[in-house]
Amino acid sequence: MTKAIAVTVWNEFRHEKSNAEIGKIYPEGMHGAIAAHLNAAGGIEARTATLDEPEHGLTEKILAGTDVLTWWGHMAHGEVADEIVDRVQEHVIAGMGLICLHSAHFSKIFRRMMGTTCSLKWREAAEREVLWATKPGHPILAGVEDPIILEHTEMYGEFFDIPEPEATIFISSFAGGEVFRSGCVWARGAGKVFYFRPGHETFPIFHDPRILKVVENACRFLAPAARSEVTVSHRKDIGWFEK
Amino acid sequence: MTKAIAVTVWNEFRHEKSNAEIGKIYPEGMHGAIAAHLNAAGGIEARTATLDEPEHGLTEKILAGTDVLTWWGHMAHGEVADEIVDRVQEHVIAGMGLICLHSAHFSKIFRRMMGTTCSLKWREAAEREVLWATKPGHPILAGVEDPIILEHTEMYGEFFDIPEPEATIFISSFAGGEVFRSGCVWARGAGKVFYFRPGHETFPIFHDPRILKVVENACRFLAPAARSEVTVSHRKDIGWFEK
Amino acid sequence: MTKAIAVTVWNEFRHEKSNAEIGKIYPEGMHGAIAAHLNAAGGIEARTATLDEPEHGLTEKILAGTDVLTWWGHMAHGEVADEIVDRVQEHVIAGMGLICLHSAHFSKIFRRMMGTTCSLKWREAAEREVLWATKPGHPILAGVEDPIILEHTEMYGEFFDIPEPEATIFISSFAGGEVFRSGCVWARGAGKVFYFRPGHETFPIFHDPRILKVVENACRFLAPAARSEVTVSHRKDIGWFEK
Amino acid sequence: MTKAIAVTVWNEFRHEKSNAEIGKIYPEGMHGAIAAHLNAAGGIEARTATLDEPEHGLTEKILAGTDVLTWWGHMAHGEVADEIVDRVQEHVIAGMGLICLHSAHFSKIFRRMMGTTCSLKWREAAEREVLWATKPGHPILAGVEDPIILEHTEMYGEFFDIPEPEATIFISSFAGGEVFRSGCVWARGAGKVFYFRPGHETFPIFHDPRILKVVENACRFLAPAARSEVTVSHRKDIGWFEK
Repeated sequence: MTKAIAVTVWNEFRHEKSNAEIGKIYPEGMHGAIAAHLNAAGGIEARTATLDEPEHGLTEKILAGTDVLTWWGHMAHGEVADEIVDRVQEHVIAGMGLICLHSAHFSKIFRRMMGTTCSLKWREAAEREVLWATKPGHPILAGVEDPIILEHTEMYGEFFDIPEPEATIFISSFAGGEVFRSGCVWARGAGKVFYFRPGHETFPIFHDPRILKVVENACRFLAPAARSEVTVSHRKDIGWFEK
Repeated sequence: MTKAIAVTVWNEFRHEKSNAEIGKIYPEGMHGAIAAHLNAAGGIEARTATLDEPEHGLTEKILAGTDVLTWWGHMAHGEVADEIVDRVQEHVIAGMGLICLHSAHFSKIFRRMMGTTCSLKWREAAEREVLWATKPGHPILAGVEDPIILEHTEMYGEFFDIPEPEATIFISSFAGGEVFRSGCVWARGAGKVFYFRPGHETFPIFHDPRILKVVENACRFLAPAARSEVTVSHRKDIGWFEK
Repeated sequence: MTKAIAVTVWNEFRHEKSNAEIGKIYPEGMHGAIAAHLNAAGGIEARTATLDEPEHGLTEKILAGTDVLTWWGHMAHGEVADEIVDRVQEHVIAGMGLICLHSAHFSKIFRRMMGTTCSLKWREAAEREVLWATKPGHPILAGVEDPIILEHTEMYGEFFDIPEPEATIFISSFAGGEVFRSGCVWARGAGKVFYFRPGHETFPIFHDPRILKVVENACRFLAPAARSEVTVSHRKDIGWFEK
Repeated sequence: MTKAIAVTVWNEFRHEKSNAEIGKIYPEGMHGAIAAHLNAAGGIEARTATLDEPEHGLTEKILAGTDVLTWWGHMAHGEVADEIVDRVQEHVIAGMGLICLHSAHFSKIFRRMMGTTCSLKWREAAEREVLWATKPGHPILAGVEDPIILEHTEMYGEFFDIPEPEATIFISSFAGGEVFRSGCVWARGAGKVFYFRPGHETFPIFHDPRILKVVENACRFLAPAARSEVTVSHRKDIGWFEK
């Protein structure tokens, strides 16, 4: 109970290295900024993993010790190995939380968990986004102001091709008039998936304490009561109910 | 199968009589405008009922012959008799469709079907609303342009206190930056409930062919396959399963 | 965070007084048995309230200090005052958890929160029930064996007239062949509602440690992060979003 | 409107050829039995396709002309080519209905649409199954008796690893005491998916008029209003909302 929540912050980590301006915003990478906040928050132990590490930093051992995995990817979704996607999916089904951030809507793992294309409309115009809370009292919203106004963001617009959310936490409007379901929760097997929209690489979104607080809250909410050793797939072998 | 869908268009019908400007927009009442469209659409037979008729025009006989009931109310929610609300609820549970329009979010019948306060933020500033389709392929959206832009509307904003929708059909943005779940479907018993936001009495919303098309589509979608003679409450008396 | 969860265990408390056999099973009432377990569980402070107390023991002050309310009623649903039902509903919307047990499916408060008749099939034949877990990993199932077999229960059978559950935790089968959604969760406003089927007054169900564990888990799961002072209905008054 | 619904009945079609007893039950294959019923039902034009045909009989042209695809597979799930699974998924997202029958719970396409393992408990003991209707009034149940009792079936038991259904149509009990969500609907993109449990190859389930009626009803329910030429993925290219 007093054990810290083990979070693995995964990042594609390419934009920060290939684009000087982005590198200046995130000298330690977006994963570094997120992990630093989580480690300072109390009750969470965050480590990081990135695409170019062996097995993308997501070995069986790492995932078995992960309560919640956060995922940011954009330009290299296709380079994520299918067997790692399989592995992450298995761990979500067995109880691990999965938080997909911003452009991770098009990641293999998010599309895998949703069963849909996860496509959307988009526009880069550094425009204003207003995120409205649509589930007051939800743990992900604890201590978060409503609405959250972000002055400069990339726009994502509906139709967002996702299954109907089991809980819609945020809906955004954009200066151009679009709307977007920006925070959504689904259960999958024994695990939960949270999609959270903000996080475009050219803006310092992951330095914004409000955004970081949402990610932190989501880590606490998605952490399984106990990282179960009995996975769902084992359960299919329990066999008969004794008559 | 070739039988027409029987729609009862219910209206509080007070604003049109007490306010000359509104009366000019809707000389036959909002119910008259809606019913005229439905009767011209083909396959639908619409009649009307209003608050000040005996039993609000919603006798047992009328409801028993109604496939879909549309509801508009605003200034006199409290004058709707509880026994009529009970009666409407029973018919929804037994399969009748219910469409609640605009300020009917605060009607007794809508709050009864939802179990929540159905409260929301609002502002009258004749501002622009953009309704985005969030369920492409849904029958309610058939032949309806996306987005629907309404230049002058009353604003409704989140948090809208409703149960998580089973299907979210429209989400709106407003010029002021707010968002709203403007078209939502829930099943209740053998019936379905559709909430649709547009319809403020001071604007000619129910003369807009796009809005009328949505209401028409919803009537077709909510009409029960057959108006069941076996109600849900009879079913509780079926008794034993014979071993 | 280390503050105990405040649970109010409400009981109609009539069967125990009018029927000697039931009184023997529950000398302190069903509420006494449930509260005793909760108070021994750690981190929970449970008190009780019953129908025949003034305001049914559910004053504004009591409810304002309650994180989770459990409800058992059967023979006297109609004697619960409507203004108390209103009051309980308001507190659920503002974040209080509500657990409805067994025959509370027909209570005013449960039907209020659902919007449906909550009717079902039933039979008293002291038959075997098997409760299967259908949401592995859910906090309500923590440490609970799967399946739970109850040798002697009253049967409840589908169709159970409830809105589609947001999370289905248990489904039961009965010796006679019926099935029932025995554990279901819905969000309403800032609060959550849990229905749990077992608990017929003529069987010592609330002395069964597995059943008590489920109720205890549900109390922990439904307790709001913080009993919010900002209710949903206050939120409707926030007014404009400042442009 | 008067155009027939185009159904493609897909079958693995191996058991019928490799096992003489199964071949005797289904001399035209399970697909033949299902298609014969659908073609006699009125308003439906059914054709068949099987695993061993080129492209498994599911060319782009065939799928583009299909309103609803039914799927039965069991022993050769792994032989279904991934590119065909991709193609079927795209058509579901664009509006095509998908009905997965019995052991198709483990098909690539069903697991793809769900995002979960779709695992379950099972036992072959030719035992009694009782399917209870849990959504009265739903079009899939039109004219179908409640409950449906099947004297000899393979058992499937919970936990069935699926996302929470958007509509639960049937729940089964088995003689051994297990339960199973036997009829479930989910929306995916512009399409809908229906899972229906009965259909073990060694029993003449697809000669049972009640089972065939459910499949027929599901075809009518899942058929898109119009097979849309605008797919969801085209929609992501609409681009800007013009300010």
